[in-house]
Amino acid sequence: MKVAVLGATGYAGCELVRLLHQHPRAEIEYIGSRSHVGTTYHLVHPQFFRAFGLELQPPDLNLIPDPVELVFCALPHGRSADLVPDLLAAGKRVIDLSADFRLRNPALYETWYGRVHPAPDLLSKAIYGLPEVNREVLPGAALVANPGCYPTSVLLALAPLANAGWIDWDSVVIDAKSGVSGAGRSPRQAFHFPECTESVKAYRVGDHQHIPEIEQLLSHLSSEAVTITFTPHLVPMIRGILSTIYLRLRQNCSPGQIDQLYEQFYDGHPFVRLLPPPQLPETRFVRGSNFCDLGWRFDQRTGRLVILSAIDNLVKGAAGQAVQNMNLLFGLPEETGLTQLPLF
Amino acid sequence: MKVAVLGATGYAGCELVRLLHQHPRAEIEYIGSRSHVGTTYHLVHPQFFRAFGLELQPPDLNLIPDPVELVFCALPHGRSADLVPDLLAAGKRVIDLSADFRLRNPALYETWYGRVHPAPDLLSKAIYGLPEVNREVLPGAALVANPGCYPTSVLLALAPLANAGWIDWDSVVIDAKSGVSGAGRSPRQAFHFPECTESVKAYRVGDHQHIPEIEQLLSHLSSEAVTITFTPHLVPMIRGILSTIYLRLRQNCSPGQIDQLYEQFYDGHPFVRLLPPPQLPETRFVRGSNFCDLGWRFDQRTGRLVILSAIDNLVKGAAGQAVQNMNLLFGLPEETGLTQLPLF
Amino acid sequence: MKVAVLGATGYAGCELVRLLHQHPRAEIEYIGSRSHVGTTYHLVHPQFFRAFGLELQPPDLNLIPDPVELVFCALPHGRSADLVPDLLAAGKRVIDLSADFRLRNPALYETWYGRVHPAPDLLSKAIYGLPEVNREVLPGAALVANPGCYPTSVLLALAPLANAGWIDWDSVVIDAKSGVSGAGRSPRQAFHFPECTESVKAYRVGDHQHIPEIEQLLSHLSSEAVTITFTPHLVPMIRGILSTIYLRLRQNCSPGQIDQLYEQFYDGHPFVRLLPPPQLPETRFVRGSNFCDLGWRFDQRTGRLVILSAIDNLVKGAAGQAVQNMNLLFGLPEETGLTQLPLF
Amino acid sequence: MKVAVLGATGYAGCELVRLLHQHPRAEIEYIGSRSHVGTTYHLVHPQFFRAFGLELQPPDLNLIPDPVELVFCALPHGRSADLVPDLLAAGKRVIDLSADFRLRNPALYETWYGRVHPAPDLLSKAIYGLPEVNREVLPGAALVANPGCYPTSVLLALAPLANAGWIDWDSVVIDAKSGVSGAGRSPRQAFHFPECTESVKAYRVGDHQHIPEIEQLLSHLSSEAVTITFTPHLVPMIRGILSTIYLRLRQNCSPGQIDQLYEQFYDGHPFVRLLPPPQLPETRFVRGSNFCDLGWRFDQRTGRLVILSAIDNLVKGAAGQAVQNMNLLFGLPEETGLTQLPLF
Repeated sequence: MKVAVLGATGYAGCELVRLLHQHPRAEIEYIGSRSHVGTTYHLVHPQFFRAFGLELQPPDLNLIPDPVELVFCALPHGRSADLVPDLLAAGKRVIDLSADFRLRNPALYETWYGRVHPAPDLLSKAIYGLPEVNREVLPGAALVANPGCYPTSVLLALAPLANAGWIDWDSVVIDAKSGVSGAGRSPRQAFHFPECTESVKAYRVGDHQHIPEIEQLLSHLSSEAVTITFTPHLVPMIRGILSTIYLRLRQNCSPGQIDQLYEQFYDGHPFVRLLPPPQLPETRFVRGSNFCDLGWRFDQRTGRLVILSAIDNLVKGAAGQAVQNMNLLFGLPEETGLTQLPLF
Repeated sequence: MKVAVLGATGYAGCELVRLLHQHPRAEIEYIGSRSHVGTTYHLVHPQFFRAFGLELQPPDLNLIPDPVELVFCALPHGRSADLVPDLLAAGKRVIDLSADFRLRNPALYETWYGRVHPAPDLLSKAIYGLPEVNREVLPGAALVANPGCYPTSVLLALAPLANAGWIDWDSVVIDAKSGVSGAGRSPRQAFHFPECTESVKAYRVGDHQHIPEIEQLLSHLSSEAVTITFTPHLVPMIRGILSTIYLRLRQNCSPGQIDQLYEQFYDGHPFVRLLPPPQLPETRFVRGSNFCDLGWRFDQRTGRLVILSAIDNLVKGAAGQAVQNMNLLFGLPEETGLTQLPLF
Repeated sequence: MKVAVLGATGYAGCELVRLLHQHPRAEIEYIGSRSHVGTTYHLVHPQFFRAFGLELQPPDLNLIPDPVELVFCALPHGRSADLVPDLLAAGKRVIDLSADFRLRNPALYETWYGRVHPAPDLLSKAIYGLPEVNREVLPGAALVANPGCYPTSVLLALAPLANAGWIDWDSVVIDAKSGVSGAGRSPRQAFHFPECTESVKAYRVGDHQHIPEIEQLLSHLSSEAVTITFTPHLVPMIRGILSTIYLRLRQNCSPGQIDQLYEQFYDGHPFVRLLPPPQLPETRFVRGSNFCDLGWRFDQRTGRLVILSAIDNLVKGAAGQAVQNMNLLFGLPEETGLTQLPLF
Repeated sequence: MKVAVLGATGYAGCELVRLLHQHPRAEIEYIGSRSHVGTTYHLVHPQFFRAFGLELQPPDLNLIPDPVELVFCALPHGRSADLVPDLLAAGKRVIDLSADFRLRNPALYETWYGRVHPAPDLLSKAIYGLPEVNREVLPGAALVANPGCYPTSVLLALAPLANAGWIDWDSVVIDAKSGVSGAGRSPRQAFHFPECTESVKAYRVGDHQHIPEIEQLLSHLSSEAVTITFTPHLVPMIRGILSTIYLRLRQNCSPGQIDQLYEQFYDGHPFVRLLPPPQLPETRFVRGSNFCDLGWRFDQRTGRLVILSAIDNLVKGAAGQAVQNMNLLFGLPEETGLTQLPLF
């Protein structure tokens, strides 16, 4: 399997290169970047020295070698939408890590991303690449919209309950905490080391662009129009998202029933781990791996279920999930190339 | 004003020494500790070298010099309750930083702290030392129960709304994030550097001992029986608590009405800062200071008010608030000795 | 004493504002900045909210109010040299925190800073503002060249030995470790949080611009032409410099003689602390304070003296030292406004 | 290949389990621990949940299944020496990660470790497991003394020069910086998060127990009695050692000659990377991998060579090197199971 990675120098792109390079079946034939054309990859990311030294090329369809069957687009939002139609027209399959093909409704895209969608026809053709929900339809996809990092952590936590129709949607509050790599690799004041270490803050309260992506799948799973409250926070660590989700159930359930629901839903899904009490998810337990760890507590005093969900935002929240999708596209076992254990 | 500090080597005790040493009116006459008796203070905390070199003594009433009028108890929960009755009987005034005198109902103390209260008579006599609420009654107090760190951050965020009766209590979810110093100075596996840096986790979901303390004051302010959902999280930083509070109001309010409510409530209170939009609280902006920063957003899509509250857990959440209480006890301006600006 | 701060929004400028605002005798009348003209200071640095709200002005001599006697220049290297001559001509005294007036030899400036010095005449008139060495000549200075952060930590460690002529100069190796705030407030790739946390590196090995500054004063103190090896390192923390200095003495000295030399040299200097064994300097013990902590060990096996020196790079390494110099210029006690204890 | 890991719950043991579990040829048959006997491994280290769930047993020879050919001892210093003789007598091969068999001279062991060596006969039989130096003799070893973390970083930096006889030994100064995991997994005051984050310090100046280990191999390689100055430092990060080494060469060498010496020495050694200028080693570039990155600068002004060496202390500095040694013992390609790329 010959693949190309566009946007290879950003954090998601860099993780793609790491995972694909170690993948037993994939071969990276082309790496594209807007900013370092002509540079050897390991000069931008010296951790790859002596391991991976391809030269960076422009993110240009015409330069991608013919044998490349699959293109990973890890370009910024907006850039992908401009490029993907041509990639598809040229017969490439595409896994897009940007947000450009995640929302099926172009009006929502315009509202939350501030731009008219340049290829609205493709929105209904893209498959949302959350394998734990869409594993059956992914193998045939030409275009996979790889989920956002926050949505992955939230949706895996809520999918079983949403699917079962158990959630009182009016009660849902999602408080998410992310490491700084989620903000990308471009230096900015807010992510300058002395400005964000030793501190925690909320940002984009109630208007983060991942909200409609979360609501879209939850609405689909529950067949209801779902609206949720979502607040992202920045935590001084490189990797990891912990989502703390508060909700009430529509009817009383015993702990055993909840456990059983999750166990059945995730039976046969290798990357979702249901932690046995008293253990709760911590982002360090998934660092560098494609796992999503889930745990929950029922607060009897207030009748709320509190669900904790931890992922590595760059792996299960981006590049790892993209590789998982690639495996499904090519009929490989889902775990292929993704068996690295978390790095304490 | 001559004072003693018992439990002077823990983090709260150490902050007390820092603040009292710089206080223009207070003089530390006695420092007590269970673990370093006979040691010069700056050998335990070398940051005090050449500044403060008193010798540590046992936390024993009989050894405290007579001129000491006020004793700060920064001992662990349980130890204070054993000692305070004798201190009061000897005519000392006491500001207790433990949880032992915060709950007025001894049954609640037993439930949440797992111990029969040894001095239940004193519970109704202790004044809860949140000056922004109890400033009027503090000057006459013999025993001040200094609030917990989480409760301080939550109560200052909610007091105006609770007092006004605006909160739909069934809707309240509190998601709090704390630095590691909140766990105290004793080394434990969970707070060993490699185990807690580069990670975030929730703990004691729904059963943290600060819950009844929060509910007690909110119930008092609102004259209703308040129950809240509260989840503390551990964030890899030394100092700081950020509480993100989700709630619905009982009736529609304009942003201006909410602003006005907070402005009126905190008018004349020097340590609560209402940040102007778009600024939201971040723990780094209060680091080392006695400020509590507040900000809020209204999520129109879901009808929830999201309130952010940031304090330094060791200052406004412990030692700084204790000094603020001391100032009130002795009729000094509230800010005396507490004018240090945050240390970026 | 009315003062102005130019370059008030950078890290050194921000610390100047913090310290001067809390100084009992200084009043900040003017704050200049190239980047935020017209903005209220606390909107750039929200930690100052409700404490300091002057409006930022251009760094322009003509706008500085007449009563201002002293101007702190915390502008980037190069900008100061352009501005200072006019400030002096207008009768202002200047404490310059840039490197522009630290080297007395304009040829050295050109070599290490890559620019012909625009005001070479002033170089011999500037007083190097290391009070522990130049306290006697500082009161009369019109222009003070405030030392660099690395030089301060190194020079305070070596001054007593250099002055006594005890150092075998050929043996001196200086290995310094700095927090990230030393790199300034402008975001750059190398200081983007995910790029510098959880890592340590050396940089500018053998060619850092602070080398000639260190050698100049050591040469002056020892009356020899001193050349030293100096390697700076970047450590994932906000504040602090730890310099580890290796050298051989020209003759055998007992530990007592070394102690005595340091004690005599620093007798009456409030900010240098000679830590008693077994304690060695750690940057956390000086955080936020103007202290320089020194300690040493003699490695009998190799005949080397190993000296450790810790400062807060933004305080004793920049703004605190500038305020100390201001106190000397105005005949105030050296510690005025600098008595804040380290913030653990 | 069936193996056992004793001391499996410490950091080195935990890395061994991670690497061996992913090794294509090794099978972990037995995990021993003094502290968690009877517990499932993933309950101690939840990152292994659903991946590795063996039950912890006592570190007792009699319980180790017969088919186990190789035992990794990751027990504390002292414990290994008591156990290893019996393991060898029972026909097991042993890779010992403690310091117990690294020094060939029992008197040195007694001096630096404060204990009479219980099995001095074995010292001369153990092979020092630095494959880049001892690759030829390792395949036949019954007992491998796995090098310390600091020695690995230092020896790989100096071996080519030592071997060539180029070093002026009197000039060697080694300044090493380590992450906190090097101190082990037991919580202690000095490694409590609030005590060691945001700070840097030196420790055990001139008397660290890794000094004789470094000197022993350098003396062997150079056929001279080598004495070096070594100062370890603690840096607030989990993993990584950066050693900065200062020395003078006995004769003038061109940069090309130095490069050539290193290239020849490390030709065919897959884990030592000679970084091309201007790149210098940073610990983040080797994180989680078995690489040792080397770089150097010549300081013409002082005639010193400055060599930088970076490893992950838990991988190349402990568990990874042990697996590399295992591969050599069993005639496998050296990289087997060690091809994981660094985790940014």
